[in-house]
Amino acid sequence: MPTDERRYIITFGCPDRMGIVAGIAGFLADAGGWIVEASYHTDPDTGWFFTRQVVRADSLPFGVEELRTRFGTVATALSAESGWKVDDTGEQRRVVLLVSKEGHCLYDLLGRVTAGELDARVCAVIGNHATLGPVTRGHGIPFFHVPFPAGDPEGKAAAFARVRQLVDKHDPHAIVLARFMQVLPAELCEAWQGRALNIHHSFLPSFVGAKPYHQAYTRGVKLVGATCHYVSADLDAGPIVEQDVMRVNHGDSVADMVRKGRDVEKVTLARGLRWHLESRVLVHGNKTVVF
Amino acid sequence: MPTDERRYIITFGCPDRMGIVAGIAGFLADAGGWIVEASYHTDPDTGWFFTRQVVRADSLPFGVEELRTRFGTVATALSAESGWKVDDTGEQRRVVLLVSKEGHCLYDLLGRVTAGELDARVCAVIGNHATLGPVTRGHGIPFFHVPFPAGDPEGKAAAFARVRQLVDKHDPHAIVLARFMQVLPAELCEAWQGRALNIHHSFLPSFVGAKPYHQAYTRGVKLVGATCHYVSADLDAGPIVEQDVMRVNHGDSVADMVRKGRDVEKVTLARGLRWHLESRVLVHGNKTVVF
Amino acid sequence: MPTDERRYIITFGCPDRMGIVAGIAGFLADAGGWIVEASYHTDPDTGWFFTRQVVRADSLPFGVEELRTRFGTVATALSAESGWKVDDTGEQRRVVLLVSKEGHCLYDLLGRVTAGELDARVCAVIGNHATLGPVTRGHGIPFFHVPFPAGDPEGKAAAFARVRQLVDKHDPHAIVLARFMQVLPAELCEAWQGRALNIHHSFLPSFVGAKPYHQAYTRGVKLVGATCHYVSADLDAGPIVEQDVMRVNHGDSVADMVRKGRDVEKVTLARGLRWHLESRVLVHGNKTVVF
Amino acid sequence: MPTDERRYIITFGCPDRMGIVAGIAGFLADAGGWIVEASYHTDPDTGWFFTRQVVRADSLPFGVEELRTRFGTVATALSAESGWKVDDTGEQRRVVLLVSKEGHCLYDLLGRVTAGELDARVCAVIGNHATLGPVTRGHGIPFFHVPFPAGDPEGKAAAFARVRQLVDKHDPHAIVLARFMQVLPAELCEAWQGRALNIHHSFLPSFVGAKPYHQAYTRGVKLVGATCHYVSADLDAGPIVEQDVMRVNHGDSVADMVRKGRDVEKVTLARGLRWHLESRVLVHGNKTVVF
Repeated sequence: MPTDERRYIITFGCPDRMGIVAGIAGFLADAGGWIVEASYHTDPDTGWFFTRQVVRADSLPFGVEELRTRFGTVATALSAESGWKVDDTGEQRRVVLLVSKEGHCLYDLLGRVTAGELDARVCAVIGNHATLGPVTRGHGIPFFHVPFPAGDPEGKAAAFARVRQLVDKHDPHAIVLARFMQVLPAELCEAWQGRALNIHHSFLPSFVGAKPYHQAYTRGVKLVGATCHYVSADLDAGPIVEQDVMRVNHGDSVADMVRKGRDVEKVTLARGLRWHLESRVLVHGNKTVVF
Repeated sequence: MPTDERRYIITFGCPDRMGIVAGIAGFLADAGGWIVEASYHTDPDTGWFFTRQVVRADSLPFGVEELRTRFGTVATALSAESGWKVDDTGEQRRVVLLVSKEGHCLYDLLGRVTAGELDARVCAVIGNHATLGPVTRGHGIPFFHVPFPAGDPEGKAAAFARVRQLVDKHDPHAIVLARFMQVLPAELCEAWQGRALNIHHSFLPSFVGAKPYHQAYTRGVKLVGATCHYVSADLDAGPIVEQDVMRVNHGDSVADMVRKGRDVEKVTLARGLRWHLESRVLVHGNKTVVF
Repeated sequence: MPTDERRYIITFGCPDRMGIVAGIAGFLADAGGWIVEASYHTDPDTGWFFTRQVVRADSLPFGVEELRTRFGTVATALSAESGWKVDDTGEQRRVVLLVSKEGHCLYDLLGRVTAGELDARVCAVIGNHATLGPVTRGHGIPFFHVPFPAGDPEGKAAAFARVRQLVDKHDPHAIVLARFMQVLPAELCEAWQGRALNIHHSFLPSFVGAKPYHQAYTRGVKLVGATCHYVSADLDAGPIVEQDVMRVNHGDSVADMVRKGRDVEKVTLARGLRWHLESRVLVHGNKTVVF
Repeated sequence: MPTDERRYIITFGCPDRMGIVAGIAGFLADAGGWIVEASYHTDPDTGWFFTRQVVRADSLPFGVEELRTRFGTVATALSAESGWKVDDTGEQRRVVLLVSKEGHCLYDLLGRVTAGELDARVCAVIGNHATLGPVTRGHGIPFFHVPFPAGDPEGKAAAFARVRQLVDKHDPHAIVLARFMQVLPAELCEAWQGRALNIHHSFLPSFVGAKPYHQAYTRGVKLVGATCHYVSADLDAGPIVEQDVMRVNHGDSVADMVRKGRDVEKVTLARGLRWHLESRVLVHGNKTVVF
């Protein structure tokens, strides 16, 4: 069973009640669908039910659009409040990256795409500095330099309008803030909700905001971390997708923490992005289920 | 939804084919069963399908014996090769511990049981030395000292016969070798297959056999580990349930490794035992699925 | 070279300048001192120099009091601002534990002392509840129940006065708040400065104060942690000695996080206490150097 | 104190005896040397003493050659068996990389060098396949394709002779086998002893030799790892510099393990190489001290 065969990924959520699993499984079985992955979760606090089901495309006698139509009927019957999506792995994921000067996350993601590890197409890289243009173009990917004038609110708004235009024309599955050092305005957080992923260089909720490694150094913590989260209007407070940490000690300067932290940042972002692109991350309120 | 409410846990395996999920989910839905946890896996190499389903006991109109009868029919219909089990959380798990002189795993497990963290009853502790008798009895648990005479095969066989008798009268769900320093004879491995858990003090398959920390020290590894596995006739080669590691460095003597390793051993064993008692571990061939 | 042979541990700090290492090493060499461990660190921000030196007691022609006198002269000559201490491993460390109802840290520490892993004597355990009395007394250690009347400031002050009296009569090297749920008053923080260790059940500075696992659950973090720190007048803000974390996921309830977190708490506290008792932890400002 | 200021790094080893620390510290103090880092270790088994001292170059009234001459006299006086080295951070480290088709370690190392994280010059990359030529040349680094004919011992010997020539003309401080899939012949192991670093894609000593992830998958381990070690004539048995692991589970195919393992490999190799280039790794017998 080659893992690159085409599959449909159904994600679904609604208030929990008896018979949902059977309802979905029965629908798929009746249509001849071969389920190759299935995950379930009910949140005990909110009573919300979540599922993700992966079906072999060649096991169904119809295409993805027909599946969407038919599953929509099932979903509505199961709950009027249900939210759902059907993704087709036959459609390559499109990603746009926003960067600044620091290249470690960009290098890492481009390396993964080149190696075929992330089945995605990087449509564009947008930088508020020109620093990372050459390496991006060296990978055959368009790079756009959109300067953000400091202390000029109008100039900044114009820059964000330009970024939005460059991003939206690709209708990307993911917009990745790969150490982009600008705070997204509320309207972009809204427009890209559930698609914009940020990597914050601390183990949130510790050290929100600027210079988290300096904050960590001053506090004398024994581990530094990184957090991949969805961008929301509240700075560094969106739903967390993945976190990891690395040990530091008294011998580590701020510069050492920055250096060690980079390895956590790039791996944490890559994992979060991968799960997002595989439709493994379901958001409910300010929390995520990662199947 | 209190987590201590009574539940039935169905575990099931068979060669994968279309419709198994729907078959089981449909059966449960028809009976009014409320599924609160459901996990699935298909092994791509062997094509074996595994599932674990947890149902609220109060959602079914019949008891566990009737559920076993009815589910048996479903299981056989799904596959002649199927293997399955229905566990009832209303029946407390029974555990027997085998120990020697080292007490860290015993202390840790007794502490967890006392704190109500492990919902199990320790029916007996059996030691080939008397060392750990007082602490065991201090917890109100019967302790049996069964000496193993060195260099006396017949005496050893008699000792194992006595151990077997002491264990089997409780028909325990788990027999835990909590740093028991004797190698089980083949007939006990056979009799207790799938129920006897060992903690080996290395990251297997490294450092099989005696004195693994000495082996680790000599090789100069930078991490030491522990492995919780089912006992099989091949020494330290049974199906692995859980593993973990801890960092060491050139400053650590063998005694330091032994000391640091204890913390890994006790946590790894406790996790493995917990998963086993919750029927989360499904064995197929020499590998485990841990749901 | 048995590790239990008697040693003197010198810890020393002063503003960094050229020649400190040579000054101390020369003094020891002239006296015939055999250094078996030596660590150095200079903090680049404050320019403060730290060292810890371990000398075989039998290599010196005089006793610990004479060493203190002579080393004092050297220390003063090196810097008028120097701070230093000479500990003698021949004098067993004395520890008093403060507890409440949760026993996992207490069980763990008592297990380590019983196993000879921590070379210390637990002089007394004091609980604001009686819950952990039997297990403490079962280890042959005196237990004192000092109730803390809720909503009665005077009664609370009297209780703390009683605790102080019970603690101070042992002049302990360490006062361990092993999940003691009362906030120490400022005068006790002052009196026990540098000797009182707390285990906080979060990865500080995240989730200061009460119910950190509930806070972690609400925020949806993917790791939970624990922090061993010196107690200071600012709640949960004292110098951090050790931290560690454990992975959690969306399937973990608050109760699961509490359970998993216990394993991190007990190991983190045990490591911090061990390092403190071995004079490995040097405090400067609000940060620690752990040699 | 900028961290990029010039420093001399002294590494020294000899049989332990009283007065070594004082001897070295006294020599440096007499010369006005300002020690900014100092580490010591004595191996209890072999009785071998190790130290690493870092001195500010501008604190000494003479240059590195004079330091070598003078320290040589001190070293000989301390022990006729002493081994030592004085490195000058003013001389940039030279590195040659050997690769095959897999690029993740190469990409990662080049990214670190470009970002200024590793203060080294990559003089050349040599591949037994041409695959990684373009990305190497894109970084402005010479790439040499040296094919290794399968099943042709003479052709292989000629290829190794060519590799040796390409490497040795740079007299590199490190030769890094960054997932180079050829076994070095004994004479190259000899010639490059203590300078050739390999990354093996398992937690050694588990899974020596070919296809370690397949071996790990078959054994059903719950963690996969990577090992950075010095190359020796015994395959995968040289002194270990660094190891790390990552959690896997039953849902991970061999391909998933390979993918997850890459993140461990590249980070483990980068750490090992960094420590080697900073003269932090002292080898004695088949073990390392990492200061």
